[in-house]
Amino acid sequence: MCVRFALLGAGRIGKVHAKAITGNSDTVLVAVMDAFEQAANDLAAAYECEVRSLDAIEAADDIDAVVICTPTDTHADLIERFAHSGKAIFCEKPVDLSVERVHACLKTVEDTGTKLMVGFNRRFDPSFQAIRTAIDEGAVGKVEQVQITSRDPGPPPAEYISKSGGIFRDMTIHDFDMARFLLGEEVTSVAATGSVLVDREIGELGDFDTASILLQTASGAQCVITNSRRATYGYDQRIEVHGSKGMVAAENQRPVMIEIANDEGYQRPPLHDFFMTRYVEAYAAEITSFIAALRNGQDISPTGEDGLKALILADAALKSATEGRIVDVG
Amino acid sequence: MCVRFALLGAGRIGKVHAKAITGNSDTVLVAVMDAFEQAANDLAAAYECEVRSLDAIEAADDIDAVVICTPTDTHADLIERFAHSGKAIFCEKPVDLSVERVHACLKTVEDTGTKLMVGFNRRFDPSFQAIRTAIDEGAVGKVEQVQITSRDPGPPPAEYISKSGGIFRDMTIHDFDMARFLLGEEVTSVAATGSVLVDREIGELGDFDTASILLQTASGAQCVITNSRRATYGYDQRIEVHGSKGMVAAENQRPVMIEIANDEGYQRPPLHDFFMTRYVEAYAAEITSFIAALRNGQDISPTGEDGLKALILADAALKSATEGRIVDVG
Amino acid sequence: MCVRFALLGAGRIGKVHAKAITGNSDTVLVAVMDAFEQAANDLAAAYECEVRSLDAIEAADDIDAVVICTPTDTHADLIERFAHSGKAIFCEKPVDLSVERVHACLKTVEDTGTKLMVGFNRRFDPSFQAIRTAIDEGAVGKVEQVQITSRDPGPPPAEYISKSGGIFRDMTIHDFDMARFLLGEEVTSVAATGSVLVDREIGELGDFDTASILLQTASGAQCVITNSRRATYGYDQRIEVHGSKGMVAAENQRPVMIEIANDEGYQRPPLHDFFMTRYVEAYAAEITSFIAALRNGQDISPTGEDGLKALILADAALKSATEGRIVDVG
Amino acid sequence: MCVRFALLGAGRIGKVHAKAITGNSDTVLVAVMDAFEQAANDLAAAYECEVRSLDAIEAADDIDAVVICTPTDTHADLIERFAHSGKAIFCEKPVDLSVERVHACLKTVEDTGTKLMVGFNRRFDPSFQAIRTAIDEGAVGKVEQVQITSRDPGPPPAEYISKSGGIFRDMTIHDFDMARFLLGEEVTSVAATGSVLVDREIGELGDFDTASILLQTASGAQCVITNSRRATYGYDQRIEVHGSKGMVAAENQRPVMIEIANDEGYQRPPLHDFFMTRYVEAYAAEITSFIAALRNGQDISPTGEDGLKALILADAALKSATEGRIVDVG
Repeated sequence: MCVRFALLGAGRIGKVHAKAITGNSDTVLVAVMDAFEQAANDLAAAYECEVRSLDAIEAADDIDAVVICTPTDTHADLIERFAHSGKAIFCEKPVDLSVERVHACLKTVEDTGTKLMVGFNRRFDPSFQAIRTAIDEGAVGKVEQVQITSRDPGPPPAEYISKSGGIFRDMTIHDFDMARFLLGEEVTSVAATGSVLVDREIGELGDFDTASILLQTASGAQCVITNSRRATYGYDQRIEVHGSKGMVAAENQRPVMIEIANDEGYQRPPLHDFFMTRYVEAYAAEITSFIAALRNGQDISPTGEDGLKALILADAALKSATEGRIVDVG
Repeated sequence: MCVRFALLGAGRIGKVHAKAITGNSDTVLVAVMDAFEQAANDLAAAYECEVRSLDAIEAADDIDAVVICTPTDTHADLIERFAHSGKAIFCEKPVDLSVERVHACLKTVEDTGTKLMVGFNRRFDPSFQAIRTAIDEGAVGKVEQVQITSRDPGPPPAEYISKSGGIFRDMTIHDFDMARFLLGEEVTSVAATGSVLVDREIGELGDFDTASILLQTASGAQCVITNSRRATYGYDQRIEVHGSKGMVAAENQRPVMIEIANDEGYQRPPLHDFFMTRYVEAYAAEITSFIAALRNGQDISPTGEDGLKALILADAALKSATEGRIVDVG
Repeated sequence: MCVRFALLGAGRIGKVHAKAITGNSDTVLVAVMDAFEQAANDLAAAYECEVRSLDAIEAADDIDAVVICTPTDTHADLIERFAHSGKAIFCEKPVDLSVERVHACLKTVEDTGTKLMVGFNRRFDPSFQAIRTAIDEGAVGKVEQVQITSRDPGPPPAEYISKSGGIFRDMTIHDFDMARFLLGEEVTSVAATGSVLVDREIGELGDFDTASILLQTASGAQCVITNSRRATYGYDQRIEVHGSKGMVAAENQRPVMIEIANDEGYQRPPLHDFFMTRYVEAYAAEITSFIAALRNGQDISPTGEDGLKALILADAALKSATEGRIVDVG
Repeated sequence: MCVRFALLGAGRIGKVHAKAITGNSDTVLVAVMDAFEQAANDLAAAYECEVRSLDAIEAADDIDAVVICTPTDTHADLIERFAHSGKAIFCEKPVDLSVERVHACLKTVEDTGTKLMVGFNRRFDPSFQAIRTAIDEGAVGKVEQVQITSRDPGPPPAEYISKSGGIFRDMTIHDFDMARFLLGEEVTSVAATGSVLVDREIGELGDFDTASILLQTASGAQCVITNSRRATYGYDQRIEVHGSKGMVAAENQRPVMIEIANDEGYQRPPLHDFFMTRYVEAYAAEITSFIAALRNGQDISPTGEDGLKALILADAALKSATEGRIVDVG
């Protein structure tokens, strides 16, 4: 079975997926659509596919799956629409910023038996996969403490912040998903602190730019997450998992493995400065996993439910940080 | 001026200080005392000093300073006693496990104008000192987030646990002091979780063996501390400080710098398995700093006040972990 | 200008180049040829190009450049043939195993004004490029000593050894080229030792499997190269360049950046086990550089002359190792 | 048995040994002697021992062993003198710069049955010891290739160079000993190159400041050594041992384990800048090993023979570098 795709959204992340889709054998990118016609045309020319309207994609017989990379506030509507038209769906995170809206949307997904994958790309990073594998193989015993360090090179523009749902729903949500992925059980309480230390404008928009979060599970496992919208040395993405038998950790990936030594000491270059170069392998592996699940009839993961649960943690963290109390979840 | 010492307590840590004192030129170890006569005799023989009673040391003209390494529940009484007899005092942490008792004791110290240093040895570790220096030199800008990883190789015996005051007052207290040392401002709120994952007997004694703590300061700086009474790979002691301009981190010190590579990969030996080998340089530098302060008339640091403030954070953490709420301090 | 390619040789390395060519925009893979028809057909199907005969490719108007990935003993003949037909040529190393044959071949290249690039792929590895850049930017001052560690995961089959020209012409030749690339001046003397420690059969074929080589330049710069046909921990590729101001080194690239710690210590997974996964970025950058040079009219590098000079060092090393003397070159 | 020492030479290295001797229980430093009376007096005051003349030490009944830290050209004479007076002898390397003189001296040592240890301190470095142990335990299989990187922070004064015997006899000699220590068999051929790249004055004195050496053994094992009298980033001391089953390597020891990261990348402080701080543990372990051998009647290692064999390799390297040929030894 060859999987035939339509791409909804021809922006930055759309191009990443277009490249991944066309780089897979046994997959075809049939069509692209974007509200900005020029973006759709450019992507269609580069990847030799058609430009089609949403309606045409919805009605098409020659399309098996859609990849949703449009703005966040269109995700839930598009998922419901293509669920009804019987397409498999890969949707960039989040499904929606409202837990209620996500619930409703996932009801439709369930009722229609739609195959839906949510784009938590980091699960597919080779190093983080290797951590998961090490845990599964018993290398660290039972998981007891997880430490996630996640720092962006710099803050996004104010315009983005205002639509993003805030640091917990936009940035930490990846770490909440990673925490669930690694803890292997659900979180029961959330304590969070948020500060405005990087960019005053972020504070004026009611958001934080620096956050620390402490999660606990029913079995007593713990997870600490530290976030900042600034890391002068590059995109800092590290994980440590401590278990009853030992630890497994993922160091930062480096663009080049060189070190210069002189009378000032030893110097290594900064990290990647952009999530798309840092996670280039993860994005390719993610879409490959989606295709494989469709072809082999395997369960899709991460699911819409995973998206929902991460969002619930984000809401709890926001409540904890703003109300100054530990919030129970689940 | 040659500083003349008496050592109170000839146990494990007493020997460390005896060695440090006698290794300094311009210092003399005059006398030792211990409730176990044999211990005092052995130490006196090894370091060529006298065995004296507490009364004799208190009354002695030829002793300038005492080092208190006796059991915890004797510290406050001994501090008060030697404060009244005009000796300078180095006391192993803690002053006491009760905040009220510490307050009373420090009142006596203040009233008598006694020079008191509390043994937070980690401040004197060369790597942690280098972190403090890097911060002072502006290498990371204003401090925003501190991460402290502190894991013991294995749990202490139950007997020790029952007298220790619990994980926050016994183990995390070092990290609370380190947090204060690195944050450069006082903590205003504490969120903590504690679990029993390592040793059921610890739980039966009402204590935790695994803890994660989240601190915040008035300026919005944050600190996360993770603790465990078990680290199969050795005594894990790491620090990261993130600031407005960058990061400074201390990796674990290693007994040997070798790595073996074979068909299973690259392997480095475990870390130190004991706090006394890990912090051997810190213990020496600590007592040297005390001596220098006495000789030069400089301010002593860390003070009894530092001991008190760390204890207050420990009490707050215990309250947070047991009551499930964020606790305000200060 | 769109560069139109024909691929000569559809084996392992041919596929790497096919992927690189088709992954470039503004490039077209027009045709492939291979002595094994099935190999050509498979590659043509996978990359949507034609299968053509050598004669047809030679005569074609719609082909600008050929990539030669056929067996070594055909390289020089094919270079000469396509030099006469006016195609640009990318040829996998070596041009030939005989210095005389290479001389003759390069004469034809020169006489016909052919653009010829020789496939020393490692020059295009991002980390080794970064070393070259660091040197160019003066980070280490004048280059004084170069150390190249190059160890294969395991020995090739005996059949390969017998046609390879021996370890110096087959394996070390990459390191000779790297030495020239980094030293920035020509080598004047070669001392080499070769041993048979890995595989007795290699010795029976008159070859070595373990070698150490010492190079010197006219200015007194030095280079040491260590080679082995075995590295249980993976494909070991490291470089150090020491100069008057400092050092720049490239550590091994790692498939994943994880480390597991337990009671046996800290363990990282083995390195890449294959040159094609280790140098995947280098292969892509290499062909991109060739295409860019053709499109922009820039000088091509590395040239046939670079291939010749590395081969001369290989011959000198063989002479040194077998005759037990230091050999002058140049 | 308490070992009673006299120290000959109260200079820099004499103080190191005085500290090591007095730091050992069951050892006594009885006397010191130095051509500069003030140096002897100062050391005697600091370590509470007597100042005695050579004659008095020679005749003394209360001295079991002497430690020779006087200038190189006095070593052989002193060894012979104290061999005749029945003392055990620890002598700083080298015994002498002349192979003939060493032969004669060792004859006396043998004839008198004197216990003689030569001060190749690096054998006692904890990391290099751990390499030797890993080899002994079979971690890397049979040793095949050794790589030794040894770079001094800066060149010694010209006055020192002129008496040192040149880079091979003064600096590389440590690496020759280390090569023998790790290879576990004798070297059969030496190829060396020497250059003057650091300090023209060194060249004017007929010496080199930059050297690369290639050793081979009868079994075909190989060793490469790289030396420079300059390393801007500190005292660079690294070893790699490759065997049939894998590799064991020792990274540089670092004064502090911190790293600073900012917009210029990741920076670690320079290495130790002095051999005495780098090898402080080795010096202590060395003298402890000597004392233990005397007390337990164990064989002493390294012996005068080890000193001789390293010197023979140094002479061969000098011949190789100056005559441009590979030199057979043994």
